[in-house]
Amino acid sequence: MEEFLRFKKQDLLRYGRTYMEKLGAPPEHAKIVADVLVEADLRGVDSHGIIRIYSYYGNRLEKKFMDPATPYRIVTETDTTVLYDGGNGLGHVVSYAAMSRCIEKAKKSNVAIATVKNSNHYGIAAYYSMMALEHDMIGISLTNSQPLVAPTYGRTAVLGTNPISIAAPSYNEYPFVLDMATSVVPIGRIKVYEEKKEKIPMGWGIDDDGNVTEDPEKIRSGGPGALMPLGGTDIMRGYKGYGLALMIEILCAALSGASYLTQVGFPHEPKVCDVSHFFMTININAFRPAIDFRKQLDDMIKLLKNSPKASGKDRIFIAGEKEFETAKYNEIHGVPVLKPVVDELVSNGKRLGIPFELKPI
Amino acid sequence: MEEFLRFKKQDLLRYGRTYMEKLGAPPEHAKIVADVLVEADLRGVDSHGIIRIYSYYGNRLEKKFMDPATPYRIVTETDTTVLYDGGNGLGHVVSYAAMSRCIEKAKKSNVAIATVKNSNHYGIAAYYSMMALEHDMIGISLTNSQPLVAPTYGRTAVLGTNPISIAAPSYNEYPFVLDMATSVVPIGRIKVYEEKKEKIPMGWGIDDDGNVTEDPEKIRSGGPGALMPLGGTDIMRGYKGYGLALMIEILCAALSGASYLTQVGFPHEPKVCDVSHFFMTININAFRPAIDFRKQLDDMIKLLKNSPKASGKDRIFIAGEKEFETAKYNEIHGVPVLKPVVDELVSNGKRLGIPFELKPI
Repeated sequence: MEEFLRFKKQDLLRYGRTYMEKLGAPPEHAKIVADVLVEADLRGVDSHGIIRIYSYYGNRLEKKFMDPATPYRIVTETDTTVLYDGGNGLGHVVSYAAMSRCIEKAKKSNVAIATVKNSNHYGIAAYYSMMALEHDMIGISLTNSQPLVAPTYGRTAVLGTNPISIAAPSYNEYPFVLDMATSVVPIGRIKVYEEKKEKIPMGWGIDDDGNVTEDPEKIRSGGPGALMPLGGTDIMRGYKGYGLALMIEILCAALSGASYLTQVGFPHEPKVCDVSHFFMTININAFRPAIDFRKQLDDMIKLLKNSPKASGKDRIFIAGEKEFETAKYNEIHGVPVLKPVVDELVSNGKRLGIPFELKPI
Repeated sequence: MEEFLRFKKQDLLRYGRTYMEKLGAPPEHAKIVADVLVEADLRGVDSHGIIRIYSYYGNRLEKKFMDPATPYRIVTETDTTVLYDGGNGLGHVVSYAAMSRCIEKAKKSNVAIATVKNSNHYGIAAYYSMMALEHDMIGISLTNSQPLVAPTYGRTAVLGTNPISIAAPSYNEYPFVLDMATSVVPIGRIKVYEEKKEKIPMGWGIDDDGNVTEDPEKIRSGGPGALMPLGGTDIMRGYKGYGLALMIEILCAALSGASYLTQVGFPHEPKVCDVSHFFMTININAFRPAIDFRKQLDDMIKLLKNSPKASGKDRIFIAGEKEFETAKYNEIHGVPVLKPVVDELVSNGKRLGIPFELKPI
């Protein structure tokens, strides 16, 4: 178990805002970025939280790889659709705007889709899908990302880990919130095994020849080797995960006219990443009263959770449930940040003139 | 290799129409059902083709489990949404109507969604998603189905194999057509191993205790045992496949107000199945010229196909590619039907007064 410190959510939010403002983001933009990052840590998705504030965002802003003003703009628009140019700024900012616009549109038109080109990494996909929940809407959030995943029968990384998130509102139960990469595991999971000098399970990744490997050192971001799509090998139907990843690449990159597959930049690269996103809202009341939908979702959740358990298991989970429970706990006890991440915040903060001086709880 | 006979596509279509008409379907409905079934065989998806004409459809019609008139009707409708009641008729018929209406709506409103309740099995999901292609649209088709898949940490079948299909138009390449069950494999695949008395790969299914099994006899439709969701075990992230299956259950059943999970009937059961579907169209021209989208999809396909191959592999496939090639071949050489299926068509046809007298090619 790695050591971590807990901080008040409000303190982390304030630090995130200050950090982004210092690097040139307007205050209202800085607030969005901080909110998305801290929400990830709050929900226990620490791989996508404050740990990335420098490597994915601060680094690119410091080196002028992306525009801190995030001068996003609408390219084309109809009552149900909108295409944004993200202005090579903070992905969170244009994504927040795009999802907000989808929600407004769906209030009138019942269904709406936004695509975004020329953007950067947007944080956790579920942040945006969940924005729909309080409006009696189903929310969908997709993004492409830098190439890390090999297509079935390939041996190099061509596709991103392209996540899919969908959120649906419930009544008394937690909402259904799916947020999953379409690879078996993210690259960070491989690194954890490498650091522990442990073998990875067969089916997570391939070596430079395209053979499944147990050796985490043979799979690195940027190659050699690559992650495998959900399913893993062809006998386990990894081509379905590959198909889903390509579906997301099409909905994000081809529908917005953005870079695709190996063209998409890594956060550390001194170039425009041109990441693209897809957002969608469905107004439930257009089909049936949202209250009926919400109650039915509760019933579905209960049926699943009450169904017989496998031997040795005492609980069946619903997508998002663990994250909601973690968030509830962390709201009270503080948001955990790994000790090495705190150390990096301190040292980087010093260098950037944004001292990290938060008191842990 | 199983023995099969090849028939002219037009002959099979004519037989399918006659079959459905004899069992009470109006001629224009019979035509749709025959078209969906033969299209499956034509594309090499023989598990969903003419093999099911009796077990999934004829059987239910003969025994009055479903209404051959398919008295479907619209329950609620807006410019972008429509909810159908399928009238407990042929799933293909209301699905064809629902997707057609989505296409019409998207011509004006750019995005449209149809949900359908009180339906039956609709054949191959891709038949409906592909209807969008010629209209410069992306098509999506989802359905729930009878319970065959266990949730992660469960030990009984609660979810259907709930397929997802999405079709996107290309320029010179074959269109992208994903059509995948969200289980690792369908139940029919387990039966093939059982008949061959071979072990199944670990990760395809669980026994009655919820343990992964290699014994195909321990996994049966209706239990004991169950299929596993895409991914398989939790170490291989089978909970992602479970999440996708539940996502589809929500979009079909909760958004239409239909039966869900274990409530959904099996085709052989003497009750209303209340299967539900979800269809969607996206008018590409609302975002950017469809020609640009089509050309970009071609480029994406070429990039993937030209990327380095794993050792021992000489080709990377795109979703739908094999099916388009198979269809091209079968259009010329005839549509293959397995010998035991032909035998069943002959014997059942005699009993039902719909003699199967087609000459093989």
